[in-house]
Amino acid sequence: MQKFLIPCFFLVSLIGFSQENLLKYVNPFIGTEKMGHTYPGATAPFGAVQLSPDTDTISYELNGKYNKDVYKYCAGYRYEDETIVGFSHTHFSGTGHSDLGDFLVMPTVGKLKMNPGTAQHPETGFRSRFSHDEESAAPGYYQVQLKDYNIKAELTATTRVGVHKYTFPKSAESHIILDLMSGIYNYDDKTVWTYVRVVNDSTLTGYRQTNGWARTRTVYFAMTFSKSFKSYGRKDFDTNQVYKGFWRKFNQNENFPEIAGQKIRMHFDYDTEEGEEIMVKFALSPVSQSNAMENLLVETPGWDFEAIKNQTQKSWNQELNKIQIKASENDKINFYTAIYHTFLSPTVYMDVNGQYKGLDQEIHIADGFTNYTTFSIWDTYRALHPFFNLVQPSRNNDMVKSMMKHYEQISLKMLPIWSHYANDNWCMSGYHSVSVVADAIVKGIYDGDENAALDACVETANKRFYEGIGDYIDLGYIPDEKNGTSVSNTLEYAYDDWAIVQAAKTLGRMDVYETFIKRSENWKNNFDPSIGMMRPKLADGTFRENFDSQETHGMGFIEGNSWNYSFFVPHDPEGLVKAMGGKKKFTDKLNTLFTMHLPDEFFAHTEDISREGILGGYVHGNEPAHHVAYLYNWSSEPWKTQETVRHILEMQYKPTPDGLGGNDDCGQMSAWYIFSALGFYPVAPGSENYAIGSPLIDEAIVQLENGKKLKIKSINNSSRNVFVQKVELNGKEIKDFTLKHSDLVKGGELVFYMSDKQNK
Amino acid sequence: MQKFLIPCFFLVSLIGFSQENLLKYVNPFIGTEKMGHTYPGATAPFGAVQLSPDTDTISYELNGKYNKDVYKYCAGYRYEDETIVGFSHTHFSGTGHSDLGDFLVMPTVGKLKMNPGTAQHPETGFRSRFSHDEESAAPGYYQVQLKDYNIKAELTATTRVGVHKYTFPKSAESHIILDLMSGIYNYDDKTVWTYVRVVNDSTLTGYRQTNGWARTRTVYFAMTFSKSFKSYGRKDFDTNQVYKGFWRKFNQNENFPEIAGQKIRMHFDYDTEEGEEIMVKFALSPVSQSNAMENLLVETPGWDFEAIKNQTQKSWNQELNKIQIKASENDKINFYTAIYHTFLSPTVYMDVNGQYKGLDQEIHIADGFTNYTTFSIWDTYRALHPFFNLVQPSRNNDMVKSMMKHYEQISLKMLPIWSHYANDNWCMSGYHSVSVVADAIVKGIYDGDENAALDACVETANKRFYEGIGDYIDLGYIPDEKNGTSVSNTLEYAYDDWAIVQAAKTLGRMDVYETFIKRSENWKNNFDPSIGMMRPKLADGTFRENFDSQETHGMGFIEGNSWNYSFFVPHDPEGLVKAMGGKKKFTDKLNTLFTMHLPDEFFAHTEDISREGILGGYVHGNEPAHHVAYLYNWSSEPWKTQETVRHILEMQYKPTPDGLGGNDDCGQMSAWYIFSALGFYPVAPGSENYAIGSPLIDEAIVQLENGKKLKIKSINNSSRNVFVQKVELNGKEIKDFTLKHSDLVKGGELVFYMSDKQNK
Repeated sequence: MQKFLIPCFFLVSLIGFSQENLLKYVNPFIGTEKMGHTYPGATAPFGAVQLSPDTDTISYELNGKYNKDVYKYCAGYRYEDETIVGFSHTHFSGTGHSDLGDFLVMPTVGKLKMNPGTAQHPETGFRSRFSHDEESAAPGYYQVQLKDYNIKAELTATTRVGVHKYTFPKSAESHIILDLMSGIYNYDDKTVWTYVRVVNDSTLTGYRQTNGWARTRTVYFAMTFSKSFKSYGRKDFDTNQVYKGFWRKFNQNENFPEIAGQKIRMHFDYDTEEGEEIMVKFALSPVSQSNAMENLLVETPGWDFEAIKNQTQKSWNQELNKIQIKASENDKINFYTAIYHTFLSPTVYMDVNGQYKGLDQEIHIADGFTNYTTFSIWDTYRALHPFFNLVQPSRNNDMVKSMMKHYEQISLKMLPIWSHYANDNWCMSGYHSVSVVADAIVKGIYDGDENAALDACVETANKRFYEGIGDYIDLGYIPDEKNGTSVSNTLEYAYDDWAIVQAAKTLGRMDVYETFIKRSENWKNNFDPSIGMMRPKLADGTFRENFDSQETHGMGFIEGNSWNYSFFVPHDPEGLVKAMGGKKKFTDKLNTLFTMHLPDEFFAHTEDISREGILGGYVHGNEPAHHVAYLYNWSSEPWKTQETVRHILEMQYKPTPDGLGGNDDCGQMSAWYIFSALGFYPVAPGSENYAIGSPLIDEAIVQLENGKKLKIKSINNSSRNVFVQKVELNGKEIKDFTLKHSDLVKGGELVFYMSDKQNK
Repeated sequence: MQKFLIPCFFLVSLIGFSQENLLKYVNPFIGTEKMGHTYPGATAPFGAVQLSPDTDTISYELNGKYNKDVYKYCAGYRYEDETIVGFSHTHFSGTGHSDLGDFLVMPTVGKLKMNPGTAQHPETGFRSRFSHDEESAAPGYYQVQLKDYNIKAELTATTRVGVHKYTFPKSAESHIILDLMSGIYNYDDKTVWTYVRVVNDSTLTGYRQTNGWARTRTVYFAMTFSKSFKSYGRKDFDTNQVYKGFWRKFNQNENFPEIAGQKIRMHFDYDTEEGEEIMVKFALSPVSQSNAMENLLVETPGWDFEAIKNQTQKSWNQELNKIQIKASENDKINFYTAIYHTFLSPTVYMDVNGQYKGLDQEIHIADGFTNYTTFSIWDTYRALHPFFNLVQPSRNNDMVKSMMKHYEQISLKMLPIWSHYANDNWCMSGYHSVSVVADAIVKGIYDGDENAALDACVETANKRFYEGIGDYIDLGYIPDEKNGTSVSNTLEYAYDDWAIVQAAKTLGRMDVYETFIKRSENWKNNFDPSIGMMRPKLADGTFRENFDSQETHGMGFIEGNSWNYSFFVPHDPEGLVKAMGGKKKFTDKLNTLFTMHLPDEFFAHTEDISREGILGGYVHGNEPAHHVAYLYNWSSEPWKTQETVRHILEMQYKPTPDGLGGNDDCGQMSAWYIFSALGFYPVAPGSENYAIGSPLIDEAIVQLENGKKLKIKSINNSSRNVFVQKVELNGKEIKDFTLKHSDLVKGGELVFYMSDKQNK
């Protein structure tokens, strides 16, 4: 990646775009408290390694059942916790289900402890107390003082290598623990197999295979220490293994270089002087130990921690400078932290030599593109991928190529639903990859075989056995009896089908167009005109009697109730207005949504949002209604988009650890913020159109990859002056609340004239 | 491999060596009853696939403990059993511990059964009754009638592909089961992970990872059917798996192509006509699914079962023709079955593209050699590898190269002890790889870097932490207190050290020579002159008081008692004669060994030999005394070698399923037979010398790889005329009972003049 970024940087310099230091506006702790599920550790832009502290070891299961509390630890770190168990190398950002946490490393001093201990009694294990006063984080850098050991821990990372620097006190009993059992959403048999070989007195390689959210997942590693360890050992925690065989000939626990088993922790022992620094470089690979070692040697050839950190931070600053803004300090922190969060994933998923493991569990070479994984597409198709199409089109082109490889390699022949590390975990509904593909085709981003991509969309959309698609195709909706989330599925499929239509139109594929334009109207089948809302329909064609429009669970929806999902026709707001009885009734309904009072029971039943994530009955903490504030543009009170968006921007995003009202969801929440802060939003990806909102920033310069600049200005803007009076693009007034992507990427000046008056 | 054999065959033809049909003398059932532990199924010479019936599903553990009965099923098949569970693709030949049994395939008719059932009630599962009357086997071919289903099952194999032909009755419920949980020496969690993808309606690929005798082992496969299945499914037997995730969206049990988990069986369903043949090709790879598919396509491009079988049988016949003999029909059956058994392993361990998985669990390419695995070296260094040096020197050269790659790849930096499938299972004692390496160097077989090979021997012999080597180096013996098999270890190390000396001498490495010539005399440290036998010695230098020279267990020996091990100085019979008090006393001791009566308790305590495997106190069923009959050559009654060897040849090898008195041990028992039947034996591999015995055959022509022929004749030979009066090699009389390898490989004529008179 960095090879790519450096020439880009020079190109940018040549055309006179000067870089600001924007790192200081990124606060990686935002979202680490409450529902944000972000992590504060060190990573490179879209890096394969996310090296970050884990503050507990909570298990996915408790007494054989799902342990609800595990949910809080989706990113490994909770701001409210007081101990750190160690630093592991892989983390999702903002997810609402989880996995990863591979290869936890922890430095200790004193008597060797081979278990993590408990939060209540950290002294019983290798974890340590810490304080936020002695902790800091920035893009590509994290540091904390480990109180129990008087060790300063510093972390940085390149794309594929995590780099640790530990400053020890004087001790004859200094240790570095490598925990190969630990993990996020861990449970007793999640680690399927572990293999380690100690190559010499400062190098080891190996791999770990897990069975979790990703069902068949192996991560290979190479680990090097800046100082030779004086001794090392392992502890085998597998009590069930019947067969130990003739390995009993050896003492495998001490200084024994061949290690394999299901549940293993290792320790590396040192004498340290006061203030002695020991560094660890830890490279990952999806393919092999030798690839991990190659990644390590190519990306981090030396032992200069500062140089590695500076290089990664330079990369980050280049990425952040893609949008320069004028805004208040707090807004700048929210804005650049949002950009930071949007550039964490999808993550690079290939070695420096181009190899990666595919969905067929075979080794492939990414020929002419960068392969990515971590596709939380139900979330990210909405604003993140459209945002990439604006500021990261090269990467998004490669992401679509990665999705196409996924499609080619998986024997089910489907585009990804939610994929990570050569697995689809099948989380959430819809087949929204087609939206990402269509948006890239419609906006001219995808330079692969567009017709093959469209064919993949069509094949995915025709998998009859997948979540009611067969019924959906036959009946135009999914009978409530057959599927617990029949309504949201139907609505999402209908939107996705419309996205396919847009790509088909672009490519002149009228056969596809005809079929899917009809399917795109299927939302109407779940619309009950008698209540003007979406409602589960039975196989016999009647609407379900037992129905509560405020309830999320058991009512035919996922992560949203009927009130939120009734507006899920992003591709046909006019149709929805009509169905709801015209502009007035539509407006009333929107007003009700944004002002209703929800009972406390609502929150008790809803896992990943808090009252702070709610505006009336509008749930910003989950995604299905992310476009809804912009639907006022189609109502009789269009200025309400402007005030509502500004309200959400200020209420749902704060520059504090608890500043996110819901899961950041791999950058979707942050992408919503960035678009909205710039004054427009992609209501229906797959369309060129952005709906105009109300810009938060005073000025922004968007550096486009084509070398052009888009300058956005909001005249007379303030927290009172949220109403847009006029919008001009390159001097031409925009009359229909709509901006076109193809116009914006020509560059120039977009000016919003603001006032405290609603523009009726 | 076949590419190599074909030109070889033509070369042979050119020089006028006409091939006999020798296949008919091979009876693969020999050794399938009692202790032989051979398998009757289909395999190519040194083939990676051993496709053979398994007659039970016995587990390695019973109620959490070792299940003694599992031992009988080392090769999967017991002649006395009445049911066949299925046909699996990997088997050891003759081992006394086990593993493998991968990918069991079973055709059935009628109601689908997804468990194997029991031997007592086969109708409860998919297994079938069978009868030996409807069963036959030959090299490269096995067939049986499955009574319960009226299915004829036929098997053949190429090097890397197992080929099944099933002739079905008419049925709308015909099935082919693929059991991915079954295995030899199986236990509940032995299968670590399984992955399968159904590529189309007649093809699947996948892999299975196990944790058994080989700790970290993955076998990849590609499976194709000659007829499209009408439906398929899986059953998941994993009751412990906590996390099933969003895969619950699917019905994974029926026609679902993405399959993964720990415990899986699959079925493929057909309508069949009466007499309809369905073939299955099943290719293995140690590297990847795509390599397995490549192996399949390269080795078995079509669906002509007879052609594949004929090709493999032609290969076998070429191999068998390396020695043509005149002998009785029964002796021919014993002889060629012995050759067949010696050419089963080591097994080819690389794909057609040259890739294999190394001891570092990484993918390597075998550059310029064929990589082998299945090295049961404690057994096979004695006669099997010396036999290869005579008739398979190219293969043995590659086997040494494979051992050197093992050494380079394993982080312990040791030559193999007992290795299979990229693992050392560390079974048995000594570091006898050094014997194989030295023998190949001394005989000029090894064309790799000989000094590097010697260095590997020296490094292996200096692993202080391995089985008492540290004490052995420091004290010259291993104290009884520290090691349960201290005496046999010391004796075996001393021999191995002498083998290193021979290689060092050949290479002029006097530094190594000096060190190891001293170590080679360490056998003297365990020799107790007061009893004239080997005996455990304590750390204080005194011999252990509590000592029973007939007892094997707890007396400091492995697979042999003091009586057998006291003669384990193969490299210095003269020294042993002297230590035992001269030729008379030495002769008396040998006489006692071969005539003593062992109590019944002896057999109760000894796992892998029966009374039939015993001659007096001499145990032929285990290996440590395999050279001892030849030690009479150094006694005052040298003719007793001749009569004893002939006695063993006739007593221990019979052309019947129960014809082997002990484990064939990957061909060592058979190699002893072949050498002895030809009239000579390598008492101390690493030496050029063969000790002369008494040939069983009337005439033999050994076709050497250098194009020369060694003709062996025994004049006036009979079961009474076992005594050698004179031996001439190319007309020159041999006076010292010793033949030299370098003389034999020049070809010519070796003539034994036989009589019923002892030649005193």
